[in-house]
Amino acid sequence: MGSKVIDAILTRRSIRKFTEKPLDKAIIQLLLKAAMSAPSAHNQQPWEFLVIDDRKTLDTVPSFHPYSKMLLQAPTAILVCGKTKDLPAQVFWPQDCAAATQNILVAANAMGIGSVWLGVYPHDELMKKSRELFNIPEDINPFSFVALGHPGEEKEPSNRFDPDRIHHNRW
Amino acid sequence: MGSKVIDAILTRRSIRKFTEKPLDKAIIQLLLKAAMSAPSAHNQQPWEFLVIDDRKTLDTVPSFHPYSKMLLQAPTAILVCGKTKDLPAQVFWPQDCAAATQNILVAANAMGIGSVWLGVYPHDELMKKSRELFNIPEDINPFSFVALGHPGEEKEPSNRFDPDRIHHNRW
Repeated sequence: MGSKVIDAILTRRSIRKFTEKPLDKAIIQLLLKAAMSAPSAHNQQPWEFLVIDDRKTLDTVPSFHPYSKMLLQAPTAILVCGKTKDLPAQVFWPQDCAAATQNILVAANAMGIGSVWLGVYPHDELMKKSRELFNIPEDINPFSFVALGHPGEEKEPSNRFDPDRIHHNRW
Repeated sequence: MGSKVIDAILTRRSIRKFTEKPLDKAIIQLLLKAAMSAPSAHNQQPWEFLVIDDRKTLDTVPSFHPYSKMLLQAPTAILVCGKTKDLPAQVFWPQDCAAATQNILVAANAMGIGSVWLGVYPHDELMKKSRELFNIPEDINPFSFVALGHPGEEKEPSNRFDPDRIHHNRW
């Protein structure tokens, strides 16, 4: 299965244009399964997921998130959140949520679904406004939006490989 | 390509036992390609990668990192690092490095390679000791080790899917 998976990772691009076609529920379910299959520090699985497909709600996000205009077009978004309350080890939750977010992006690309990651945490104002809009409890941290939809643009794979970033045994 | 990619994501487990067989250079190259294909905030690509296959160096890590005993057996590790100097937007680098780390894990699983993610950042002491051991410059932040090798243990997929973590439009 190697090469198809590598392809899905290497060909993933940030897609910001979408068709109107809604996403199948089965696809959203698989994306959430992929997200929850991420590793997490001490296997604490400190994540929660808000699936947003209400048009009016999606249209509200760009009023406070400057890089989220594509949500006016995207049929669905997932807001990945971190739940730190009662966790024995708290410092790693943003990394765990980032791994879950990345799994969503790769799984989406594999299924022909376009996606883009929009940062929320650690910006206080973006977290606060997200909490207000979605009625998110104080102990849940909005982490990232993933805009999702059938792609309305095509992008060539972008080769970001840079051998200068690779070191061997010592710097 | 959907189902094979989803499989690679869902069947990934943390592997902590390895055979002595070294990793092919071509595999390590693909893992680094996968890492550098991660998205990053403002496409800043704030990552650097240290490939460690020197036996003595690998054996030293468990003297300061409490969860890294498997490095005594692993033929290779990649230390993912973040470079924040001169970045216009600095707060997202740990998330970018987490996405790169996650791509390594999924790509490894797809190629039948075992891996496990060991957290370093934001623990000052782990970062400091890593900097010393590998001669890493002050402006480079050690972020995570990924231990890598041909698996010396088999693990069933772990179903972490939990419908209680899913919310719809509002909390």
